[in-house]
Amino acid sequence: MQNVKIDLLTQVGYKILQNEKRFCFGIDAVLLADFSAKKVRANSNVIDLCSGNGIIALLVCGITKARKITAMEIQKEDALLAKESVKINMLDEKINIINDDLKKVSLLFEKYSFDTVICNPPYIKSSHGKENSINAKTIARREIFCELEDIIKSVEYLLKPNGHFFMIHRPERLSEIFVLLNKYKLEASEIRFVQPFVDKVPTMVLVEARKNIKPNLKVDIPLIIYSKRGVYSDEVKSIYSCRKFNSC
Amino acid sequence: MQNVKIDLLTQVGYKILQNEKRFCFGIDAVLLADFSAKKVRANSNVIDLCSGNGIIALLVCGITKARKITAMEIQKEDALLAKESVKINMLDEKINIINDDLKKVSLLFEKYSFDTVICNPPYIKSSHGKENSINAKTIARREIFCELEDIIKSVEYLLKPNGHFFMIHRPERLSEIFVLLNKYKLEASEIRFVQPFVDKVPTMVLVEARKNIKPNLKVDIPLIIYSKRGVYSDEVKSIYSCRKFNSC
Repeated sequence: MQNVKIDLLTQVGYKILQNEKRFCFGIDAVLLADFSAKKVRANSNVIDLCSGNGIIALLVCGITKARKITAMEIQKEDALLAKESVKINMLDEKINIINDDLKKVSLLFEKYSFDTVICNPPYIKSSHGKENSINAKTIARREIFCELEDIIKSVEYLLKPNGHFFMIHRPERLSEIFVLLNKYKLEASEIRFVQPFVDKVPTMVLVEARKNIKPNLKVDIPLIIYSKRGVYSDEVKSIYSCRKFNSC
Repeated sequence: MQNVKIDLLTQVGYKILQNEKRFCFGIDAVLLADFSAKKVRANSNVIDLCSGNGIIALLVCGITKARKITAMEIQKEDALLAKESVKINMLDEKINIINDDLKKVSLLFEKYSFDTVICNPPYIKSSHGKENSINAKTIARREIFCELEDIIKSVEYLLKPNGHFFMIHRPERLSEIFVLLNKYKLEASEIRFVQPFVDKVPTMVLVEARKNIKPNLKVDIPLIIYSKRGVYSDEVKSIYSCRKFNSC
């Protein structure tokens, strides 16, 4: 495959295929996988929406004792890459890659069948068909094939009554996130902002939401990415260090 | 008056009467006044709801060039104390204390007549009449006479279309705040969490909301109260130092 490189996920010891011409994973996926993995219980049935090249599925598979991880991606080429990564890591029995549209979850899965739903969605509102060029990266970044409401509606369908939903998004969209969660009978239970430096405003927010809980939000101290320019904070270093819980 | 002490508000040079048996102001009021005052324009018409002994009105009067500040408090004794404080500072022409229920704003004020609404509300949900003793402090702390929705409904009525609303609350209620703002066509424009120490989770959140704006929340870096035990951070020291903009 042209432009495809193989990277090592040091925290779990897996390899991942990435196409440099397409969307390659960033620190947001790594932070979301870590934030989610802390609460994925043994034998959980997990689904990752907007899964791209499968980065979250691979990390969560390596870090947790989940029974099964489904990763759903609308872009065929990314889903194919993810399948290849699953194959080279011999994870076919644990990770199932599905190339489909998350708006169709009700046709594909039973209602309330997942313990955990994870999503690293496109962050930016689409300018409604006014994009200059719709390429793979634009689709991963902008709400072209799905909007925030489509995702949260799907989460409501997929999640068991006592399940957990994890997402990372831009802080500027937090009020929309809370309003949409409320619309679909979900409630944010924990949020954590991610700041590039201790004195710089957050550029991301990690969100956990649950069904059937009363409002009682836990706000963590911010996660700081860099202690100084080019040097990861101790917390981020530990997230990137070996995290493997089981042999997956 | 029994149990009444006079404190000096160093940042503005005013005196404030406080009854030690009733609710005395805390750092939350000082932080809210500072957060709000930064955006109160000259000649603004300001209203402070749940005004207690008038602390916010006095601080905002001293720090900003607001034209008029109305302070509304349901508890008669606190409203009387506030009136006394206004008198001893000779601010009768600038600050108007009203002893009434914020649920009656539509009977007391013209619709959309304030540039700025400020509120330091009771933080804790009432246990619906199950309080062991309903005293002045309980009323200030718990949603006995008004709930969050009553406040936000009143804000919608009071605020001009381009007005600003400022509130401080508990982080655990942030999703309710966003959902209620949305219900009343307000939108959070800026939030700032307040942490006691850099490594302790926030105990308060400052919220600014506006009417008729698209969602685009600004999240600031947290405000840290103490640099070490018993020592205010430089930022809090500067908030408590002289801030007087005009002679009020």
